[in-house]
Amino acid sequence: MYIRLTGTGNAPQIPVYGCYCKSCSRARVDENYRRRPASAEIQTSAGRFLLDAGRTDLADWADPKTLKGVILTHYHMDHVAGLFHLRWGVAGSIPVFGPSDPNGCDDLYAHPGCLDFTHTLEPYRERRLCEEMTIIPVPIKHSKMTFGYIIKGRREVVVYLSDCDGIGPESASVIRESMPKVVIVDCSFPPEVGRNHLSLDRALPLLDELGAQWLYLTHIGHDLENYLLSHPLPEDGRILLARDGLTLNID
Amino acid sequence: MYIRLTGTGNAPQIPVYGCYCKSCSRARVDENYRRRPASAEIQTSAGRFLLDAGRTDLADWADPKTLKGVILTHYHMDHVAGLFHLRWGVAGSIPVFGPSDPNGCDDLYAHPGCLDFTHTLEPYRERRLCEEMTIIPVPIKHSKMTFGYIIKGRREVVVYLSDCDGIGPESASVIRESMPKVVIVDCSFPPEVGRNHLSLDRALPLLDELGAQWLYLTHIGHDLENYLLSHPLPEDGRILLARDGLTLNID
Repeated sequence: MYIRLTGTGNAPQIPVYGCYCKSCSRARVDENYRRRPASAEIQTSAGRFLLDAGRTDLADWADPKTLKGVILTHYHMDHVAGLFHLRWGVAGSIPVFGPSDPNGCDDLYAHPGCLDFTHTLEPYRERRLCEEMTIIPVPIKHSKMTFGYIIKGRREVVVYLSDCDGIGPESASVIRESMPKVVIVDCSFPPEVGRNHLSLDRALPLLDELGAQWLYLTHIGHDLENYLLSHPLPEDGRILLARDGLTLNID
Repeated sequence: MYIRLTGTGNAPQIPVYGCYCKSCSRARVDENYRRRPASAEIQTSAGRFLLDAGRTDLADWADPKTLKGVILTHYHMDHVAGLFHLRWGVAGSIPVFGPSDPNGCDDLYAHPGCLDFTHTLEPYRERRLCEEMTIIPVPIKHSKMTFGYIIKGRREVVVYLSDCDGIGPESASVIRESMPKVVIVDCSFPPEVGRNHLSLDRALPLLDELGAQWLYLTHIGHDLENYLLSHPLPEDGRILLARDGLTLNID
């Protein structure tokens, strides 16, 4: 099975509307530097799971015949915007897994269409989604009730932590015990700025704190991208900047 | 000045996610048959105005340097979805004109970013937006507070009525008095079905009731598109099915 990052940007995305900084200008010229809303797809032999749904072009590529479900970290618009189109589909019932949130987003609960929002997950309770994959939701700090996910293949583990403003001791402990191969984590801002999301100085120590072999930074804002043009990441190659389209194998 | 329809579909759009009816299949093969969320742009010598903002690719083509404002009919998601990305732009202050709505949509009012939602319009009160264009908001029936717009050029008038579940006597009278060249009106459904929007049998009489020279149908659902494959519109050419990209000159 593999996980493909379908977006690695924050809510403004890259390019930011109307911005002509170095990173935004580069992304307008070269599609490979675009950063769409932070999201991923998990391809298993049973079919595809979407991990967040902030991309609004899902109908063009997430074939309902092979879509087995949507896993949500939380109900902010840049993580659910694509559901407002999908819900009116002719697509049977699509389970949406996620945290308990009394309001959801706008009128998604009132008019779910083909989406089934009853699949609420409990913190730390492992859930098998198909023969080769289980997930464990771990609550993380953010401005809204938010889960990170420990994604377990047969032997390997990837942890996805977006959006994130810190990880409490219980969640950190559960993540460490899972012995993650890769941790993909929110790093929206340059050092010591921003709020509700991690800045670079707070994200980098997570490599060791969570016991990861590799740390990928996601949910990248243009200020961080510009900062990294002149302040490269540590050279040992264990901390990497994610890109839209990055694909990780999970055995 | 001209008005270009940037979307002529209803909330599910065409193709509908997962649907393989004749109209949806055709739209997957031929881009010209796609129907995106009902919306338009108005190009004037002063710059561009967006009429509704349900398209989520606005950042790719609505250059902030020439964008003079956004005119909203109402705050349903398929008419405002594109604002959730634009709001984080580096784009000065973009005025949003529209009806008074205490809630707006999701957290747009709480986090407006570069959008200025204070430009509330009063029913029937004419507003000059640039030297060559004024608009008159006319309340129309829908499931949420909704305006249609009388769009006046120097000599000609186009009326835009989406979304619409009927027009009360006062609004109908004001529209008739404006002597519209073209009325563009919600026609979501085949005859005698649906709710909150007009069906074909209720839309067609508006040509004469509103005194229009031409009536264009918009906000088209796939059931109506399929119906029209075997039930063509009246032959005199005064009632027409709008298409995405249709451009009308307004003198």
